[in-house]
Amino acid sequence: MEGVDYLAPERNNAQFDVDEMKIVWAGSREAFEVSDRIARLVASDPNFRKDDRTTLGRKELFKNTLRKAAYAWKRIIELRLNEEEAKRLRSFIDQPAFTDLHWGMFVPAIKGQGTDEQQEKWLPLAYKMQIIGCYAQTELGHGSNVQGLETTATFDPQTDEFVIHSPTLTSCKWWPGGLGKISTHGVIYARLITDGKDHGVHGFIVQLRSLDDHLPLPGITVGDIGMKFGNAAYNTMDNGVLRFDHVRIPRNQMLMRVSQVTREGKYVQSNVPRQLVYGTMVFVRQTIVSDASTALSRAVCIATRYSAVRRQFGSHNGSPETQVINYKTQQARLFPLLASAYAFRFVGEWLKWLYMDVTKRLEAKDFSTLPEAHACTAGLKSLTTSATADGIEECRKLCGGHGYLCSSGLPELFAVYVPACTYEGDNIVLLLQVARHLMKTVSQLGSGKMPVGTTAYMGRAEHLMQCRSDVKQAKDWLRPNVVLEAFEARAFRMSVACAKNLTKFSSPEEGFQELSADLVEAAVAHCQLIVVSKFIEKLQQDIPGKGVKQQLEILCSVYALFLLHKHHGDFLSTGCITPTQASLANEQLRSLYSQVRPNAIALVDAFNYTDHYLGSVLGRYDGNVYPKLYEEAWKDPLNDSVVPDGYHEYVRPMLKQQLRNARL
Amino acid sequence: MEGVDYLAPERNNAQFDVDEMKIVWAGSREAFEVSDRIARLVASDPNFRKDDRTTLGRKELFKNTLRKAAYAWKRIIELRLNEEEAKRLRSFIDQPAFTDLHWGMFVPAIKGQGTDEQQEKWLPLAYKMQIIGCYAQTELGHGSNVQGLETTATFDPQTDEFVIHSPTLTSCKWWPGGLGKISTHGVIYARLITDGKDHGVHGFIVQLRSLDDHLPLPGITVGDIGMKFGNAAYNTMDNGVLRFDHVRIPRNQMLMRVSQVTREGKYVQSNVPRQLVYGTMVFVRQTIVSDASTALSRAVCIATRYSAVRRQFGSHNGSPETQVINYKTQQARLFPLLASAYAFRFVGEWLKWLYMDVTKRLEAKDFSTLPEAHACTAGLKSLTTSATADGIEECRKLCGGHGYLCSSGLPELFAVYVPACTYEGDNIVLLLQVARHLMKTVSQLGSGKMPVGTTAYMGRAEHLMQCRSDVKQAKDWLRPNVVLEAFEARAFRMSVACAKNLTKFSSPEEGFQELSADLVEAAVAHCQLIVVSKFIEKLQQDIPGKGVKQQLEILCSVYALFLLHKHHGDFLSTGCITPTQASLANEQLRSLYSQVRPNAIALVDAFNYTDHYLGSVLGRYDGNVYPKLYEEAWKDPLNDSVVPDGYHEYVRPMLKQQLRNARL
Ligand SMILES: Cc1cc2nc3c(=O)[nH]c(=O)nc-3n(C[C@H](O)[C@H](O)[C@H](O)COP(=O)(O)OP(=O)(O)OC[C@H]3O[C@@H](n4cnc5c(N)ncnc54)[C@H](O)[C@@H]3O)c2cc1C
Ligand SMILES: Cc1cc2nc3c(=O)[nH]c(=O)nc-3n(C[C@H](O)[C@H](O)[C@H](O)COP(=O)(O)OP(=O)(O)OC[C@H]3O[C@@H](n4cnc5c(N)ncnc54)[C@H](O)[C@@H]3O)c2cc1C
Ligand SMILES: [Ca+2]
Repeated sequence: MEGVDYLAPERNNAQFDVDEMKIVWAGSREAFEVSDRIARLVASDPNFRKDDRTTLGRKELFKNTLRKAAYAWKRIIELRLNEEEAKRLRSFIDQPAFTDLHWGMFVPAIKGQGTDEQQEKWLPLAYKMQIIGCYAQTELGHGSNVQGLETTATFDPQTDEFVIHSPTLTSCKWWPGGLGKISTHGVIYARLITDGKDHGVHGFIVQLRSLDDHLPLPGITVGDIGMKFGNAAYNTMDNGVLRFDHVRIPRNQMLMRVSQVTREGKYVQSNVPRQLVYGTMVFVRQTIVSDASTALSRAVCIATRYSAVRRQFGSHNGSPETQVINYKTQQARLFPLLASAYAFRFVGEWLKWLYMDVTKRLEAKDFSTLPEAHACTAGLKSLTTSATADGIEECRKLCGGHGYLCSSGLPELFAVYVPACTYEGDNIVLLLQVARHLMKTVSQLGSGKMPVGTTAYMGRAEHLMQCRSDVKQAKDWLRPNVVLEAFEARAFRMSVACAKNLTKFSSPEEGFQELSADLVEAAVAHCQLIVVSKFIEKLQQDIPGKGVKQQLEILCSVYALFLLHKHHGDFLSTGCITPTQASLANEQLRSLYSQVRPNAIALVDAFNYTDHYLGSVLGRYDGNVYPKLYEEAWKDPLNDSVVPDGYHEYVRPMLKQQLRNARL
Repeated sequence: MEGVDYLAPERNNAQFDVDEMKIVWAGSREAFEVSDRIARLVASDPNFRKDDRTTLGRKELFKNTLRKAAYAWKRIIELRLNEEEAKRLRSFIDQPAFTDLHWGMFVPAIKGQGTDEQQEKWLPLAYKMQIIGCYAQTELGHGSNVQGLETTATFDPQTDEFVIHSPTLTSCKWWPGGLGKISTHGVIYARLITDGKDHGVHGFIVQLRSLDDHLPLPGITVGDIGMKFGNAAYNTMDNGVLRFDHVRIPRNQMLMRVSQVTREGKYVQSNVPRQLVYGTMVFVRQTIVSDASTALSRAVCIATRYSAVRRQFGSHNGSPETQVINYKTQQARLFPLLASAYAFRFVGEWLKWLYMDVTKRLEAKDFSTLPEAHACTAGLKSLTTSATADGIEECRKLCGGHGYLCSSGLPELFAVYVPACTYEGDNIVLLLQVARHLMKTVSQLGSGKMPVGTTAYMGRAEHLMQCRSDVKQAKDWLRPNVVLEAFEARAFRMSVACAKNLTKFSSPEEGFQELSADLVEAAVAHCQLIVVSKFIEKLQQDIPGKGVKQQLEILCSVYALFLLHKHHGDFLSTGCITPTQASLANEQLRSLYSQVRPNAIALVDAFNYTDHYLGSVLGRYDGNVYPKLYEEAWKDPLNDSVVPDGYHEYVRPMLKQQLRNARL
């Protein structure tokens, strides 16, 4: 960094080794090194500049994205980056592009659902980007309810082909990223129909555009679905609409790993277990959770640094004003988000382990932990993405007026992030799935079937129903077991209360519908327990580095006690804690904030984000905010001329009382 | 409306007279008629089209705004609209413009702070728009802390002028709307300095641009501060930066109603009470609260109609799927927002009364209710704007993926609305002011000084400290007095608990800082009580129309019980209610949702919004969502050509493995 470091005093105050914390954050020294190297590579290459993109019109913005995608691919080849490095590169470019879907959804779908033969044919083309693919599931009329998709793939035994067709307007594919303008191929989900029989939704590889001139193939109508939320943000992506008019594809383009259609048109299941698809789902959701920690930590980094730069009120006899980070209200809004970023990081790390565990078990045909793993990842996806979306917006507000400027980086971060609450499963729909799993688990408790994984605590039903917290002083709340027991008891009792209430209805399904809002709350309580417990587990590991573990212990307590305070009604109404204990927790929380304060800047430095990646004048590493805000302002196109375009036609006639004759 | 009304069955189910509800919503028959007439005027005039604006670049967008502002002014003159009608017209155009600040801040500032002479000179010019003004208070370095502004206005007795100067970078004016490109004049806030003495911040009328050629006057550097959050949204506004280099203005351009500088440079206070400024503040905040109900109701209208159109899951044997509005989780998220929109409407109406009351008292030199009125409006501004911002985003999520499209109208509504949480007082800073007032009120309880206005309930201290709710069945929660007592007891006990905790600190100020997060919660509890109690008061009026009052009673209960459920921890920890009573409230809430359900569409129809004003494909009156979504998509500039700009340079070389030689 050149020039003055306005935040140096803050950095000097830190009570721990930042470099060691960077390793913890990254997951390993190796992961840190890759990430650090690639981040610098992107940051130092002017081809990846992004500070101008919020003023670009849609077409320019899209072209800009195409250029970056091509340039990135060129660099990946030139530098012989491996898969992980290439992934990091794309993520540090920080501009959603068709390549995200190609690598993140199209390729994995073929890997997961294609036969060996299909993989051999299609993957090499995809790996070299000789074809570009998208993932086309959602339709205008159906998103959450995948089983309700309307596109049809009808087998024609005469020609050994499927006929892909959009029978209604609502059956148009709608939303797939990369589809609108770029993809040459797609994995298309459609109802398989053989001999008049509907076999439900299956995946098909369909070529969409000519590899010669990029024009849509006959029978295909395809385009972009239009502007989306925010400046730049997801408008760099060509989410698309797609209508099929009896498009024919060879039979071998149905993804046939799990089920097949024979030459005769017979529908047969292979001996590959259907559950395999869950493995992919766990993988994708693990990525989403880890992306949540990234997005939240970026916002927190910006808001924390700016809160240390920004001073407002509190000057006495000419002394400087108070840094707003010193206000307890600012701390009470900001530090729980800082703690959440770390919490989500660690639960994301644990999900990586879970994915490996599930994969291993699948290979050994052990499906026993699958339903639990499925519910748990659904819940964590929902919890972390919702908290992150809200958290980014809170960080924006924490920056006062200046947070509303695009140059703060926060508006775009919010707009580009929020769809994570909706895609890969609407967050409420996912929590309802978690709730179903919890109700099933509770109902089986008497039966001797022991709950597994993250629901294992329910096995201690008797204890959890009757335990009462023995917190007597504020500092008792620092003991991990005390916290854990309170969260377990609360989650369990909320689930049990729901289960009890369900029995009052004439049918369980009616009860589930009626009580679904309560069930969602019980699911949230369960998911919060998971995050808290994984944070605590993380701290049982050996963590080297001066002061590093202590800082994480503080953050872990902040995360747990913040949740406890926010939801103290749950803890009180279920009798897990007393009002006095709740207020002791709050007291402890306040004192923890004071402990975080001197380390706050270093704790966000540990994310190791470059100024390029942060893309925020307010979050600059050097804290040199004001001159840069001022500089940025003048770059707006409106400042190209002193007198704005439109003045002569519209403003002058108004000022000169000559509107009557003006052509408007 | 032409064509089919897909929502007709919903409308037929309504159990009340929608036309009468429209009157209640508008405030009076007269208000309804004005509003309805002007809304139609705007909607039917193609010059006010706004469906294309999210794809415009900054310059085009700004020019588009200038055109609309001029055209609107032309129409206002042609149609001889009165002040109220003109205001409605500007608001239905629904595109922030410099005229908002001219009429909403510049003119009122001169009216409120100018002497009679000054008003006579400047107001006629402003009324005819021969000058265009802005309100320039905030600087790069100071927003919340107005007393910390750095711009100076130094009196030069030699020339009888003030010298306006920006001594530092952080003293640049920053944010004022209309300043960037348009305003010819501004009310500029600066430290008044006479004879070396600093008299604090005062307002000055300063000409900024030449009335001949619109160029900035000598010594003035002015421009736009750049892109802000969202598509179109506030980017139609030229929020500006302004730097003064010793700019001279005549002495009589200091706004001198409350204090003056004489020809000799003597600073004197007039006999006009300083408190007068509070009147304006109450007025401005009343507007903000009523705008909150408008913004929230727009979002709720969109989400409610779309939730009745959208079907997902639940098809049995080919029956249509379930309308998502029938899911309890959807209801539990949506209906409290619907109830909040009505609640904010009525509290806004009450604030109009409060403003008149305060004005009357000021004229009679009765300042006794001012501090309470000031705190109460600060709190209501904070409460309603925060809830509205969060509520709009929740409505967007309630629309699933399609809510993320600009054509849903929700992204822009969110982005244009959120700064209301920051401007006219940062919401947390305002709540801290409320808390200060509450602590003062509590501390004076013993002294015989009776609390007034919205704090009057604190006069019943003894009762409120010991009462316990006598709710025994769910339906007891429908009794207004039961609800009111619970909210009063909770708010009071939270304030008292804070007051008690404050005494534990060595100084009250230290305590206030330390406990500020708790104090904010107490302030929120107090403000929620105000909204609930004003809703209840509204229902004590005579409200004509079949079923109208019943619907409002249901919404009032929904609002109160939703808050009670959300904050049940407060009610439990203060011992106002028992866990059983809390769960009875929740049970009652659920049954209220079922009562809202058949009336939901009619309750949003009562807002009487035109499709133009809503600006949402999802919120269309006729529910004809899907064909229109499809149509809208094709209008995106990216669909101008089938093969996108950039394909040949960037995509083709990638597909053809010819990147190495490509110029990127
Ligand atoms: C930016 C973005 C990118 C996307 N990319 C892709 C892509 O590449 N490929 C692709 O195929 N799709 C993509 N999608 C689509 C996405 O997967 C869907 O939007 C998502 O699955 C949600 O479905 P939906 O939109 O139908 O929501 P809906 O299901 O219509 O949700 C509307 C409301 O109904 C509620 N609801 C629905 N069902 C229930 C129920 N059973 N119980 C209670 N409440 C219910 C929801 O909670 C929500 O509040 C993308 C979407 C976005 C926004
Ligand atoms: C769209 C928009 C339009 C505007 N239009 C105008 C205009 O026309 N004219 C004009 O003059 N101004 C305008 N403003 C400026 C606006 O009034 C200020 O942004 C607002 O007053 C907030 O001040 P700030 O930005 O300095 O926030 P800060 O005070 O810097 O807030 C930053 C953070 O510090 C916290 N904080 C600050 N003080 C305290 C404290 N004492 N205790 C605890 N926490 C504290 C806040 O809660 C916040 O989290 C506009 C702003 C916006 C966004
Ligand atoms: Ca443009």
